[in-house]
Amino acid sequence: MQRFQVTAKSGNYPILIGRGAWRELRSLGSCGYSSIFFLTEKGIWRHWGERFVRESALRDARTIFVPAGERSKSVAEMERVASKLARAGADRKSLLVLFGGGVIGDLGGFVASTYMRGIDCVQVPTTLLGQVDSSIGGKNAVNLAAGKNLVGTFYPPRMVLADPVVLSTLDPRNFRSGLYEVVKHAVLAGGPLLSLLDRHLDSLRPDNLRALDAILGSAAEVKVNVVNRDEREANLRQVLNLGHTFGHALEAATGYRRYSHGESVGWGLLAITVLAERLGYLEAGEAGRIRDLVWRVGPLPSVRDVSAGAIVKLLPHDKKSVAGEIHWVIPERVGKVRIVTGIPLAEAESAWRDVQTLKIPLLA
Amino acid sequence: MQRFQVTAKSGNYPILIGRGAWRELRSLGSCGYSSIFFLTEKGIWRHWGERFVRESALRDARTIFVPAGERSKSVAEMERVASKLARAGADRKSLLVLFGGGVIGDLGGFVASTYMRGIDCVQVPTTLLGQVDSSIGGKNAVNLAAGKNLVGTFYPPRMVLADPVVLSTLDPRNFRSGLYEVVKHAVLAGGPLLSLLDRHLDSLRPDNLRALDAILGSAAEVKVNVVNRDEREANLRQVLNLGHTFGHALEAATGYRRYSHGESVGWGLLAITVLAERLGYLEAGEAGRIRDLVWRVGPLPSVRDVSAGAIVKLLPHDKKSVAGEIHWVIPERVGKVRIVTGIPLAEAESAWRDVQTLKIPLLA
Repeated sequence: MQRFQVTAKSGNYPILIGRGAWRELRSLGSCGYSSIFFLTEKGIWRHWGERFVRESALRDARTIFVPAGERSKSVAEMERVASKLARAGADRKSLLVLFGGGVIGDLGGFVASTYMRGIDCVQVPTTLLGQVDSSIGGKNAVNLAAGKNLVGTFYPPRMVLADPVVLSTLDPRNFRSGLYEVVKHAVLAGGPLLSLLDRHLDSLRPDNLRALDAILGSAAEVKVNVVNRDEREANLRQVLNLGHTFGHALEAATGYRRYSHGESVGWGLLAITVLAERLGYLEAGEAGRIRDLVWRVGPLPSVRDVSAGAIVKLLPHDKKSVAGEIHWVIPERVGKVRIVTGIPLAEAESAWRDVQTLKIPLLA
Repeated sequence: MQRFQVTAKSGNYPILIGRGAWRELRSLGSCGYSSIFFLTEKGIWRHWGERFVRESALRDARTIFVPAGERSKSVAEMERVASKLARAGADRKSLLVLFGGGVIGDLGGFVASTYMRGIDCVQVPTTLLGQVDSSIGGKNAVNLAAGKNLVGTFYPPRMVLADPVVLSTLDPRNFRSGLYEVVKHAVLAGGPLLSLLDRHLDSLRPDNLRALDAILGSAAEVKVNVVNRDEREANLRQVLNLGHTFGHALEAATGYRRYSHGESVGWGLLAITVLAERLGYLEAGEAGRIRDLVWRVGPLPSVRDVSAGAIVKLLPHDKKSVAGEIHWVIPERVGKVRIVTGIPLAEAESAWRDVQTLKIPLLA
């Protein structure tokens, strides 16, 4: 079991990663919660619910189900869950345990942060993306028709408990989606995570717990370190957006349906690497190392028919833009990025065209 | 002009009360906001919008209107306003100015605290209730079908600017509603506010600026002092709930339609005074002083047909209850309250029956 501590302005909390992490919930039995609720979705609960209840020993908790999929990250679903809590008698001393992937973590974190102006929550991420990235840092959000993640809060959980055993029932595409964020962390930070990926990336599978264990911890640590230095991404936390500027535009251009978030980040990493090389920030050898890491994750769904025009039109709408100015996170080498503004959109457009013709493994 | 400083864990901000307070917005011109939005409702904007724009000198701000009334304190309206902001290009460096009464302050504060995980907002309360109470302390909320104010956040504004000139267009009933909260503050704190009320309560009118000015400041100061000692009402802030346990039950029992919030608090003060006297916490003379203050505000709408059974059933549902245990704020004398639990509901029921038969001035 690996243990990290988030020490953020809004609160401190531990992150436990490894087999048996769920047992840590037993320590909350004596915290005087008036009632405990699980927020989850049926697919993951069918596989792991019984074991989770047994290991957490929270037998009196009630379960609220959310429909699977990104459409549940909505203001309407937030209202539905909050209403269920209210009707079930949840009060300010209730605890909400978020058992699921990014949708459960994002929606549930938003509910917890706003129900009666904030009740305690525990993040129990069940996807690779959740375990190494989205459950850490206290960000939550739901979507508007006008854009993704436009409404949410910063709200620290009481703890984050990530047991890799649950990854074994992930479908391979969902698993790979999380790996793209792991690659992003490695490109950001270099160091031990990069060495681990170099060694194990080809043998990483959802059921290969031994290889996973070490990588999960190292990948989560990158995020913890960034968050501890800058919770509200005023500055440093921006670097986590590496690959996300193109990625968000790709997701938006295709209605958030064709690519998972992680796959969009995979493409975004390839695009920003091309752009950085075009502009002379990144040498060819380093660009090749980044591309290799992305390619080794596995096949990506094609972007051949997503036009550069569509992408470029959406780039300035990224939430991290201020007064329409894009803050690009540019890799200078593996393990080092810088923030750059003022890059001509024509350059970004050309970079995307180059990416479309890359010879990489594609999903059938 | 009177100036107070809120120094809360989540942030410090000034409260300016008096003629010309809106001019303080000119100081934000140089703060680098990418865009500025006013959130308001048409009634108040028709009366005061032009003057507000002139005094604030925020001529480039765009105006978003919200339908008047409590029904706008909804999750759906939050989504509608956030979507308007998004479509108008609001980003993380945008400013939201909340020009209106409690609905605008509560809804707008919630929008500001969640749009892109939080943008700056300024509270410009235009009702008496807003100026002395609801705009201070950083609380916001919207309603669910299951109950009032069940979803919201703690979120400090950049500043609170209260100009009493705007009260002159309040209808008398709305004005009196605010006065009940002023009376509550006086019962809580005694001191200078109580002396001022004793002297001026009968001559307080929306257009009597001279008498208002002093009382506004003193009433706001009571709230500021409580908030500064306990932002999250874990303990001390509970005292602000004086008169609200019965008050919330009365509002809920009548579908939030028959009584304004302030009028419910007026009745709630009478009821808690009867209860405190019945239980021996409050002497008859002190009870009479509190009743006198409430009566001198003016006529209240009758509660003759709101049964004690209906009230008592709703009392334990108050948001301040924990595990169904009501935390009663009991006056011991004018200027001193204590928190009491374990009061039998039968006593509360009897107190309500007594209140129903009080000979007090009623609205025709």
